[in-house]
This record gives sequence, structure tokens and C-alpha cells, in this order.
Amino acid sequence: MDIAILLYDDMTLLDAIGPYEVLRSLPGTRIRFVTVDGAPIRPDTRALTLVPEAGIDAVTTADIVLVPGGPGDALMQADERVCRWLRAIDATTTWTTSVCTGSLILGAAGLLQGRRATSHWMAYDQLASHGALPTAHRFVEDGKYITAAGVSAGIDMALELMRRIAGDEIAQAIQLAIEYDPQPPFDSGSPTKAPATVVELVRAVSADMLAERRNATATCQ
Amino acid sequence: MDIAILLYDDMTLLDAIGPYEVLRSLPGTRIRFVTVDGAPIRPDTRALTLVPEAGIDAVTTADIVLVPGGPGDALMQADERVCRWLRAIDATTTWTTSVCTGSLILGAAGLLQGRRATSHWMAYDQLASHGALPTAHRFVEDGKYITAAGVSAGIDMALELMRRIAGDEIAQAIQLAIEYDPQPPFDSGSPTKAPATVVELVRAVSADMLAERRNATATCQ
Repeated sequence: MDIAILLYDDMTLLDAIGPYEVLRSLPGTRIRFVTVDGAPIRPDTRALTLVPEAGIDAVTTADIVLVPGGPGDALMQADERVCRWLRAIDATTTWTTSVCTGSLILGAAGLLQGRRATSHWMAYDQLASHGALPTAHRFVEDGKYITAAGVSAGIDMALELMRRIAGDEIAQAIQLAIEYDPQPPFDSGSPTKAPATVVELVRAVSADMLAERRNATATCQ
Repeated sequence: MDIAILLYDDMTLLDAIGPYEVLRSLPGTRIRFVTVDGAPIRPDTRALTLVPEAGIDAVTTADIVLVPGGPGDALMQADERVCRWLRAIDATTTWTTSVCTGSLILGAAGLLQGRRATSHWMAYDQLASHGALPTAHRFVEDGKYITAAGVSAGIDMALELMRRIAGDEIAQAIQLAIEYDPQPPFDSGSPTKAPATVVELVRAVSADMLAERRNATATCQ
């Protein structure tokens, strides 16, 4: 099982590392982290540097491709090299997947046209602008395309993917190995569950970032 | 708020990146990833390289220190530089924390003597060998020491820590921002919930790694 995970500057690390920690546990799996030009990247906090295995040109086929999200998605959506790579590798995949606003990058490459898909709950409008049908679920499957909701949702999506690929017992074993028995102190992980004041707070704090992203976003089609 | 996160070869990435994604969202937070000698490290899969901000000698105080786990913990438990650093920085912290078998590293430094603590469910015996009192909860608080269970438990612990530090509303906002509304396809994330066959499967697959770790583990006290 060959898995390619795209990394890029200003991405959100958990988007990639959550599902990676699930997918990498399947015996016989090779995970390759790639960046556009093979150069190291820094995530949105700039708190560390990640050195990938290769550039995208060196990884042209995969059983699963995974695209994480984060503020840097705007540049990825507008990057023709990323678009071309995603379209080409998508032609070889069994599953094409994203976490959070990674779905906007799949969308910019034209891969979600007319498909049900999800993204971070604050990014549905941008998903629609790429021709996708925003669908508010933890993860959404449409054909071979599985898109997960914001950040932490990639863990759930990856477990479901493991269930599909390797069966219930292996998926359950991976869940147990990473002790994924969630017990958050609050039940405020979705805008339908969080108090209205909390939803407003997150929207307010994110307003500038969202506006900047909308202005910067182009599509490479 | 100064947060120091230890990285080391053969660690489990999600142990660090889960809580990082929560803690980094608190306004005014500075997160510093450190390695023993400041050199880059590769996690247990060797799938990528992480370049830290500094070596441990350059980061001698912190409000929160966080120690992740993973197969590489054995070398960390036996490394006198790590022990000395942990004891010294612990004297400056408000919270000293770990995820998964990171608690064994805190234990090897003598910081959990007589304290209730947790770890990955397969590592309780080693925790006891460091004088701690293994306690099977998602995360365990004893004084300023908060230890989380395996891998993914660091996310829950970090949200609780945010609640303590910044209050309910900020913690809920962070949970919403990372859309942490867990919906795993199974309820098999703890040995008390998973089918017995799944527990045995994970124990069998991990047997060699656990034996190797037990043989390699020393304490630096």
C-alpha cells in the first residue's frame, strides 16, 4: 500500500499527522511525505521544519493520496504544479482523500466537481466555489473521494479507510494501538454542538485569515 | 505562555502533534520543539525528518513541558542529559506533562515517584518500575504532573489543560477550531472496550517491541 501525503508551508500539522498515525500502522504500508519541490516546509505556527522524502515529481502513483489543509491551502489551490500532480496521481489512486481545507486543493484541481464533499466548517462556501456539494458530515465519501471535516476529523476518516481496506479487526486494532478512546472535556467540536458564543468567538478570531484566504484563492483550472 | 516539547528519534508523532495543535492556539503562546542536541530527528516510521528549534540546553525554563512517547523512549529514559534537563526545567514549570510512554521518561528522571500517573495501556508495568502508581484514566493529574494515556490521549489532556489555564470558553473555542468532534467507526480505543481478540492481536504484534524496550530501558537516577 503506497500512500502519498502532501506537505506545504503554512499547513496545519494535525491534518496530516492524525491520519498518518492510523494509516502507517497497516502492515506493508509505505508512506511518502512530499512537497511541491522537495524542499522542507514549515507549518502554520512556524515552530519547526519538516523535511519530506521527495518532491511531487518523484511520486507519480499512489494507492492513497492525502491532502491536508491549513492557511497555506490558498497558495496550493493556485499552484499549477500541484493541480497537474493531483490530477495525474488521482488517475492512479484507489482513494483520493483530504482533511480540513485540503478539500479546497482537491477542488481547485477539479477533482470534486459535482461531488459531495466536506471541509472545515468555516470553509463550505469556498468548497462550493470549486463545484463541490458541501456536506456537513465528519467525513464524506463520493466514489473514491473521501474528504474529512476540520483538522482532527482525519483520524476518524483514516480509521474508516482502514476498515474498508483491511477489515474490522485490523481497524479496531489500530484504534486500540493509538488508544483512540476520545474523552474531550467538552462537547463543542462542531458548530451545531458548541455554544453560540463560542461559535461566534471562533468566527471572529478567524475572520481576517478567512478573508485573506478568499482573496488569495485562485483555481488552477 | 512558554511551552517546550521534546522530540527524539523513534518517537510517535501524534503524541506530540495532537497536544501541540491544541496548545498552540492559545494567544500569546510560544511553542519550542527541542531535541537533545538540537539535531533533526526521525519518528518511528522514519518517513520524514523534523528539524527542531533548539537543543535542550537552549531551553531551560518553560510554563509547560511536554514529553511524548514512542519506541524511542527507551534511549531517552537512559540518557542522563535528558534526565538532568527534565529535572531542571521541571523546577520552572507550572505543568509538567507527558503523552503515552513519555511518562516513562518523566519516571526515569524521578519525577513521578509515588505519584499517580498513566501511560500507554501496554506500559503500566514499566511505569510502576519507576515508582509511579499506574492509573487507568484518559489522563491523570497529580499535583502539577499530568500524564496522558496512549498516543491520541494527548489531545484530550491538552484541552483539559487549556480549560485550566484559559477557562471554558477558550478551551471550547479551540476544540471547535480543530473540529474535535470524534466519531470513530468503532468503540475499541481502550483494552476494556475492544473485543478480546483485538486486544490479543495488538499485544501479539507489539510483543517484540515491548520486550526490546524492557531490555533496553534503564533509569538515569
